[in-house]
Amino acid sequence: MAGFALFGVVVGILGVLYAVYLARWVLRQNPGNEKMQFISQAIATGARAYLFRQYRTLAALLTVLAVLILLAIDLPRGTYGLTMLGFVIGALGSMLAGYLGMYVTTRSASRVAQAAATGGMGKALAVSWRAGAVMGLSLAGIALLLISGFYLVFKAVTHDWAVPLVALGFGASLVTLFMRVGGGIYTKAADLGADLVGKVEAGIPEDDPRNPGVIADNVGDNVGDVAGMAADVYESYIVTVTAAIFLAAILGLPAQYIEMIILFATLALVATFVGVNLLKTSGVKHPLSSISMAIYATIALSVVLFFIGSFLLGLEPWRALALAAATSLGALVAPVIVKITDYYTSYNYGPVRRIAEQAKISPATVIITGYGVGLMSAIPIIAVIAAVLGVSYAIGFYAVPVTAFGDYSKYLAGIFGTAMASVGLLVVAGIIITADSYGPVSDNANGVVEMAGLPENVREVTDVLDSVGNTTKATTKGYAIASAALAALVLFIALIFEIVDVAAAAAIKGKDKLNILDNSLKALQVINPSVLIGALIGVSLVYFFTSRTLEAVGRTAMEIVEEIRRQFREKPGILEWKEQPDYARVVDIATRRALGEFLVPGLAAIIVPLLAGLVLGWNALAGLIMGAIVAGVPRALLMANAGGAWDNAKKYVELQGLKKTDMHKAAVIGDTVGDPFKDTSGPSLNPLIKVLNTLSVVFAYAIVFTNIALGIYPFGLFPA
Amino acid sequence: MAGFALFGVVVGILGVLYAVYLARWVLRQNPGNEKMQFISQAIATGARAYLFRQYRTLAALLTVLAVLILLAIDLPRGTYGLTMLGFVIGALGSMLAGYLGMYVTTRSASRVAQAAATGGMGKALAVSWRAGAVMGLSLAGIALLLISGFYLVFKAVTHDWAVPLVALGFGASLVTLFMRVGGGIYTKAADLGADLVGKVEAGIPEDDPRNPGVIADNVGDNVGDVAGMAADVYESYIVTVTAAIFLAAILGLPAQYIEMIILFATLALVATFVGVNLLKTSGVKHPLSSISMAIYATIALSVVLFFIGSFLLGLEPWRALALAAATSLGALVAPVIVKITDYYTSYNYGPVRRIAEQAKISPATVIITGYGVGLMSAIPIIAVIAAVLGVSYAIGFYAVPVTAFGDYSKYLAGIFGTAMASVGLLVVAGIIITADSYGPVSDNANGVVEMAGLPENVREVTDVLDSVGNTTKATTKGYAIASAALAALVLFIALIFEIVDVAAAAAIKGKDKLNILDNSLKALQVINPSVLIGALIGVSLVYFFTSRTLEAVGRTAMEIVEEIRRQFREKPGILEWKEQPDYARVVDIATRRALGEFLVPGLAAIIVPLLAGLVLGWNALAGLIMGAIVAGVPRALLMANAGGAWDNAKKYVELQGLKKTDMHKAAVIGDTVGDPFKDTSGPSLNPLIKVLNTLSVVFAYAIVFTNIALGIYPFGLFPA
Repeated sequence: MAGFALFGVVVGILGVLYAVYLARWVLRQNPGNEKMQFISQAIATGARAYLFRQYRTLAALLTVLAVLILLAIDLPRGTYGLTMLGFVIGALGSMLAGYLGMYVTTRSASRVAQAAATGGMGKALAVSWRAGAVMGLSLAGIALLLISGFYLVFKAVTHDWAVPLVALGFGASLVTLFMRVGGGIYTKAADLGADLVGKVEAGIPEDDPRNPGVIADNVGDNVGDVAGMAADVYESYIVTVTAAIFLAAILGLPAQYIEMIILFATLALVATFVGVNLLKTSGVKHPLSSISMAIYATIALSVVLFFIGSFLLGLEPWRALALAAATSLGALVAPVIVKITDYYTSYNYGPVRRIAEQAKISPATVIITGYGVGLMSAIPIIAVIAAVLGVSYAIGFYAVPVTAFGDYSKYLAGIFGTAMASVGLLVVAGIIITADSYGPVSDNANGVVEMAGLPENVREVTDVLDSVGNTTKATTKGYAIASAALAALVLFIALIFEIVDVAAAAAIKGKDKLNILDNSLKALQVINPSVLIGALIGVSLVYFFTSRTLEAVGRTAMEIVEEIRRQFREKPGILEWKEQPDYARVVDIATRRALGEFLVPGLAAIIVPLLAGLVLGWNALAGLIMGAIVAGVPRALLMANAGGAWDNAKKYVELQGLKKTDMHKAAVIGDTVGDPFKDTSGPSLNPLIKVLNTLSVVFAYAIVFTNIALGIYPFGLFPA
Repeated sequence: MAGFALFGVVVGILGVLYAVYLARWVLRQNPGNEKMQFISQAIATGARAYLFRQYRTLAALLTVLAVLILLAIDLPRGTYGLTMLGFVIGALGSMLAGYLGMYVTTRSASRVAQAAATGGMGKALAVSWRAGAVMGLSLAGIALLLISGFYLVFKAVTHDWAVPLVALGFGASLVTLFMRVGGGIYTKAADLGADLVGKVEAGIPEDDPRNPGVIADNVGDNVGDVAGMAADVYESYIVTVTAAIFLAAILGLPAQYIEMIILFATLALVATFVGVNLLKTSGVKHPLSSISMAIYATIALSVVLFFIGSFLLGLEPWRALALAAATSLGALVAPVIVKITDYYTSYNYGPVRRIAEQAKISPATVIITGYGVGLMSAIPIIAVIAAVLGVSYAIGFYAVPVTAFGDYSKYLAGIFGTAMASVGLLVVAGIIITADSYGPVSDNANGVVEMAGLPENVREVTDVLDSVGNTTKATTKGYAIASAALAALVLFIALIFEIVDVAAAAAIKGKDKLNILDNSLKALQVINPSVLIGALIGVSLVYFFTSRTLEAVGRTAMEIVEEIRRQFREKPGILEWKEQPDYARVVDIATRRALGEFLVPGLAAIIVPLLAGLVLGWNALAGLIMGAIVAGVPRALLMANAGGAWDNAKKYVELQGLKKTDMHKAAVIGDTVGDPFKDTSGPSLNPLIKVLNTLSVVFAYAIVFTNIALGIYPFGLFPA
């Protein structure tokens, strides 16, 4: 019955090969004139330098953690270093994903610009879309390959293969967390600094080559939005799918259920092969509707394949149908979330126009109203998450046969339905990344067009592509957060049963597993003080994270502003095109500061939950995770959507021809506040929540044994 | 053993009489010249008109709820309408508190202004402090009188007296919620509108009589900051003390424990009688340190009285000592929280200076950094709350004898320790309200001085008083939120046992109480989907509330801005002192809009939890409350402290003589964003959380019976 896992390996490899084929096609395109190539090159060099320094900084930390995992988990468990291996490979995968994203985008930018110059919209769209597809297919392919390959290998080596599989997710989310924080600080500080002096003070346009911060700004797009988002989606994929597999394993479900998870993921990638080819490019005026059609077609095809595939597993037909339905629910919810996000962040609807309207009054009311819109936007998405949780739970409750946990089995059976829904939501990731990666490619192309001084009509083409890219970028965030929320809930519940499993293995006080489970769940009631204190710590961690990242952007931007002001002051010839600005110094400041700022929040995400679990007790840790989910998911939505809404409110004011008015200035201030909201703090909450979850699963063994040694298992510091 | 409750009644009455005595003293002071009296009169008239319209609007809703409580709770329970009575009296108490606050403040303002003109700082401080003490003593006195009086009466009438006592809290918090929302929208919209056109566009100073919005702005201070804060502290007092009594009753503790709660509250009021007289006024340069000394002395005296009083109850000495210690812990934490808040919101420390520094760069970075400071400020306060919870829980766990709930008794015993800590935190409320009410009195006096055109040296005196008032106002908020958090946690746990009590009374399936409890607690594990869905709804409710109130301020301010601009445009003589502005129209717009905006969020706070409890199940309701606490408490801290920090960052810039620079403009924008954060949305989260809690206790009976009828007790929609 390992057939479907092998199928996953094969399709994963095919995905990578397909991506290579598309990449070669993109690279064969005309890279434009020498100036365009020079600019692309400068950006690529800066981005590569930053990424490598970031990876070097991380290497020491990852080594320490790998050794810790080996000593504290693999050795006592007897898992032959597999947990460490999973962690390391998962981490390397995130680094690779980030690097790939950066590589493809920077190589494509000048080619898209050239395509816009020579072939117009149709050609430019084709090139940028295929560049996006390189990302979508390679990331989904690599993730699928790793998961199904490791599943096969780990399972062959030990019966204790499930935790090492989650370690894959831990490595992936940890590196992603650091990339999101570091890249996010870099990109927004550079953007802010370049804009504040360039656009606001010197009155030169965005991406103007006279601005000493322009290269840093473009490097930032690549290390933040591109490398960060690539790592994020890769990590979400890994964590979601491994969480579902882990849950099935904990549950003691027959192998078919695990095969089903891999099969559905594989089928979705097959559907993506088709979907990326469905984009209509020639004669297109509105690329967004073309892109939406390609996404809808992929989802529809996936759903059909789920239902067909479910019959290949040898399950009772009604169970197969029910679980295919739960998975499809997740897949179908993706466009709903995209639509909701679009409503709150696009200037075609009321909310963004209300914000723009307030720009007539003052920047302050723009901020107040935009913040209000962001808060409100979280509600329908949370409602969708709650509804998916409820419905998929009910499906799982009735459709999954359960034996391993006696009376409590139904909890797990229900949440397995939710796990399938989260897999459904995630497996359309390939096409969503394609659409999302296309955004930064267009953005970069736009920058190249401006810096290389290409004619206005070329700029018009790349402007349209860029603005569509902004929309796909904004909506992808809502989607990514929702899928993270479901995956986190699944892992959260699985964690608790892993804890019980470990405790049962420790055979405390000679009790049997169900007895231990019963006691452990008593320690998990919401009125337990350890749980409450843990929840307060979890919320605090989310606040700490958000605060540190926001203030880091402010601090770094301040240094950059001072450097750019200094250059303009000391070399007045720059603005008259007579002197060359010193791009490298700004790049250097951004790099140094971003790497200086990203360690503290990242370390907090590791140390706080570990300490809480070891010292306050495992149930305090469970409370911590719950607090982080409950506080973090809505906050991530708030920050992403408020940021998107402010951005588009500014665009709406510009569209009305009101540039350079007070109203426009007010809208620009809103947009500037929104930048670190949507591109630094908001996106780092996603991997934060998953680091907490996966870290807890990986270290559950050490935590439980320490708790037992301290005499605080299962009730924590407060006996009951 | 009803002796201490009688003692409470007597001291409560003494408190009110003492307040009357002080009020007469204040009213005997010189009210100033005719112009000053005229201005005071105009403000008082506008404020009274708004409050009465607000109360009329609420009357219908309260009547409906009162009838509902009578029919759904009192009749089936056989509690002779006492629950309804408690609700109505609690609600009327909040209205009275609000009215009193407004009355005292508006009457005192011109007298403080006159005192500053004739007697300088010492005299002005004495008058404003005593005006504050009128509030502090009367509110604490009335609250203590109501609680101890009702306890005596209810207990004499029925053994089922505990829920009616909580209904007192429900009425109080519900009316406070509406007052906070309505008054908060009024005050900040008027403030924003008046400032944006007056200060920013027309360049006239704050409180300038040429500004058509100036009376509305000052009315707003009285209906928002004054009436709202008065109702808020009154409500916190009632809810905290009744929650502790309710818990003791649910727990089946001997009567001494209930007497102890009332005794400690009474002793604290006695300490307050002494404390308000300890303020040094003559020759004072820095009123803040005088005020702090009076507060510290009151706390120290209270703590001494707790330990002495604890021996009067006839408990075993070690239990008495332990519970006095838990109560003192709460009292001693108050100044710690005040200090933390001060650190994050005063310009004497790093955080506010960092914000001011960012004003050199842009308004956007002021917002970003200030928001970051607000987030960070929540963390130490939450840590204090968590620490108090942990320590007081441990004390209660060992010190309280428990029998009523068998194995589970320890949960309640522990939380009773926390209940005593929350009582300790709250009983210093009298002196804290005194210090807090003194703020708006000084603020109003400052307005009178400006509008009446009194000389510069008078303004200097009231300016100092006003700025100290801003500090006491900001720090009081942190204190109020922390005490609300502890009270909410206590009520949350008590609620769950009330649910079980009701279910046991319904004798479902012939099971005994412990059996029901066991099953009910199973439905409360954090991994239960109903609990998780409830938590998501709770967070959403907090977001909905915040969003609606923020946007309401933006919308209302926009209308006011347009009206003021219209008046300046149509009557150009206003700015040259030749024409009279139409104050009444602005007052009317603010009143109409505030009352139009306050219904939807207020109704949501009633309908959403009721529906969730009735239809999704009581455990979803428990999840909802937990979600609202976990999301709401840190958010309230964030909004209050970010607002305070922005305000003082602006003041810091002004102190450096940088008024009218770009840097000052940037700081003003931060202050303006902070206004509705700290005075509208933030403060309304406090009563919101308590409405959810008290409403659930009051309606627990109807919820459990409906759940049983629907077949969803105890597991909600998801059977286990």
